[in-house]
Amino acid sequence: MCRTQELVSSASKAKFSSNSTALNHEASAMANTKLGPILKDELDIVIPTIRNLDFLEMWRPFFQPYHLIIVQDGDPSKTIRVPDGFDYELYNRMDIDRILGPKASCISFKDSACRCFGYLISKKKYIFTIDDDCFVAKDPSGKEINALEQHIKNVLTPSTPFFFNTLYDPFREGADFVRGYPFTLREGVPTAVSHGLWLNIPDYDAPTQLVKPLERNTRYVNAVLTVPKGTLFPMCGMNLAFNRELIGPAMYFGLMGNGQPIGRYDDMWAGWCMKVICDHLGFGVKTGLPYIWHSKASNPFTNLKKEYKGIYWQEQIIPFFQTVTLPKHCDSVQKCYIELSKLVRENLSSVDEYFVKLADAMLTWIEAWNELNPSGEEATQLSKVVSE
Amino acid sequence: MCRTQELVSSASKAKFSSNSTALNHEASAMANTKLGPILKDELDIVIPTIRNLDFLEMWRPFFQPYHLIIVQDGDPSKTIRVPDGFDYELYNRMDIDRILGPKASCISFKDSACRCFGYLISKKKYIFTIDDDCFVAKDPSGKEINALEQHIKNVLTPSTPFFFNTLYDPFREGADFVRGYPFTLREGVPTAVSHGLWLNIPDYDAPTQLVKPLERNTRYVNAVLTVPKGTLFPMCGMNLAFNRELIGPAMYFGLMGNGQPIGRYDDMWAGWCMKVICDHLGFGVKTGLPYIWHSKASNPFTNLKKEYKGIYWQEQIIPFFQTVTLPKHCDSVQKCYIELSKLVRENLSSVDEYFVKLADAMLTWIEAWNELNPSGEEATQLSKVVSE
Repeated sequence: MCRTQELVSSASKAKFSSNSTALNHEASAMANTKLGPILKDELDIVIPTIRNLDFLEMWRPFFQPYHLIIVQDGDPSKTIRVPDGFDYELYNRMDIDRILGPKASCISFKDSACRCFGYLISKKKYIFTIDDDCFVAKDPSGKEINALEQHIKNVLTPSTPFFFNTLYDPFREGADFVRGYPFTLREGVPTAVSHGLWLNIPDYDAPTQLVKPLERNTRYVNAVLTVPKGTLFPMCGMNLAFNRELIGPAMYFGLMGNGQPIGRYDDMWAGWCMKVICDHLGFGVKTGLPYIWHSKASNPFTNLKKEYKGIYWQEQIIPFFQTVTLPKHCDSVQKCYIELSKLVRENLSSVDEYFVKLADAMLTWIEAWNELNPSGEEATQLSKVVSE
Repeated sequence: MCRTQELVSSASKAKFSSNSTALNHEASAMANTKLGPILKDELDIVIPTIRNLDFLEMWRPFFQPYHLIIVQDGDPSKTIRVPDGFDYELYNRMDIDRILGPKASCISFKDSACRCFGYLISKKKYIFTIDDDCFVAKDPSGKEINALEQHIKNVLTPSTPFFFNTLYDPFREGADFVRGYPFTLREGVPTAVSHGLWLNIPDYDAPTQLVKPLERNTRYVNAVLTVPKGTLFPMCGMNLAFNRELIGPAMYFGLMGNGQPIGRYDDMWAGWCMKVICDHLGFGVKTGLPYIWHSKASNPFTNLKKEYKGIYWQEQIIPFFQTVTLPKHCDSVQKCYIELSKLVRENLSSVDEYFVKLADAMLTWIEAWNELNPSGEEATQLSKVVSE
């Protein structure tokens, strides 16, 4: 831990404590939730960005009690403005290079994949990550949706990956397991990931954007459900929470953007790897609520350029992930991830040599993770060494 | 076909044509849907009952254009009143015995499992089955829900069992496949089953009813989704539609009620068998919309008595269905079902000798199905024999 803190403090991060305005807001948020902001000291909000974070104004009532980790993408000399009163640390590319040294090669540049650096540097149990073009949505009654609170509910209640419950998440208020649901499966399993959705601009690929430029998602589906074991889904990184202690090392967003042949597949990659590992280790993944308001469709032509290789590669990648099995001895996320990198190298390098590079980067990521997140025992030894 | 018709006409069924009132209602329903009641000549509504069918009054605007098959359970001497203007045929136990002869042993008595006789006797492509304590529900805007119309939409659009779409059914208006959904899977597969849900009284087992006597389902979830391949779910027979041509022979509701050690597992049994066969043959199963209004909770003590063996048996039955695989040569529903009956006998007779009886009944059911539903070629030969 000492070493980690040293590394972090050497970075040109800006870290602010809550000022009095922040405290007032925090007090009001606490008053709202009665028991205070839930998981306040156990959750970091990770935001990748290239612009001033004015979008945080709308989220102030919900986010201000929490600590933010801002990962600045693109030109590191640019100053990103963060509204007053937020408690945050900010890392730009120079910080990432300084902190990770040669291992910084595994962190993408000029792609929102850079956000996973925030997962690495966080020391909290939970992560919520959101894009800076996502705003507070309203439920059908007109009430503003506290997306973070719903994510926390999702990750704090078990998942049910082994059998489908037709009334959706049985752990939500007013719901339960229906007739015919095996009683021995009703305890559920720990939830690793909560995948939220988007009103207004749906998360479509470039071809669908081009074909349906005017389609907007107006359907509010009041459901949370577990993605069943053995089923893959397209995980979007726009509005996502996870238990970093359970699954963090699997949440690597791959090599995308600058210098890479592909973009906009960062979250998909993480989703495939994460789901296979959750299935292997017996963790759950929920999708559904909460919604955020996705304000602006990105340029479909730019997107097409970034995506087009992914669009045909995925026809081979997905069958690989659908059939991959991890050996029994892989009993930690790290072990699973290292094994997965081997299997990616063996099975996907025929698709494109890019996957050899990616498999290497997966290993580098795990090395970086272990360096910044030594396990309990290792942490004690390390701090002993540092203090001696 | 001639032989079937002969069998049917020998029954004491009552069959009415639409009278003028019916025609008026039909005209208004046609006016409502512009193109007339969809699948009017291709769908039967199957209703198992022991009482007068006053509940049909509320469904009149939606059901009257369709043909009803009423399966009267219990005392055959009792007259079931059907509101005027409905086109129906009604079968009581004596009819079933007369039509099926010794094969009638596979049709349950004093349990809603008897409904599957209606699936057998129908000659239509689609079946919608509903319980007589289910009424028209309203959507959150207060509009009455045409459950049948939504089921028809569900079965007429493809399913997506191989990959989960986070915006739910991509074939609904305003929805599509999200970014990262493989393009080669976007055609989907034929939908065999549409499983609808219930507002007000949820479909809970007796223990949950006892523990939560006041729980009501008030959550309207505006979603339809495909139950992924390899995932089982508890199929409820209360509000269910299916493509009889695709999956009919798998929709056997088992041996329940009178003379059997178990009740209230008829639909569950059908659901497990059907899902395994759909997964094998590449058909899809949807769940979600439409909702009906389930009016009255059944007696939890009576239910407990019927269910209690199922509650512990299912702990072994479900793992069996989760791991069962059908051989490649099983390329029709009938072949799959016969194979499944063998596997049930082999694997579940150790749970209870009841499963030997059930495996036999599964075979009898298929024999009865083939007799009443000869395939195209057989039908021609049969009609030739009959006319000669």
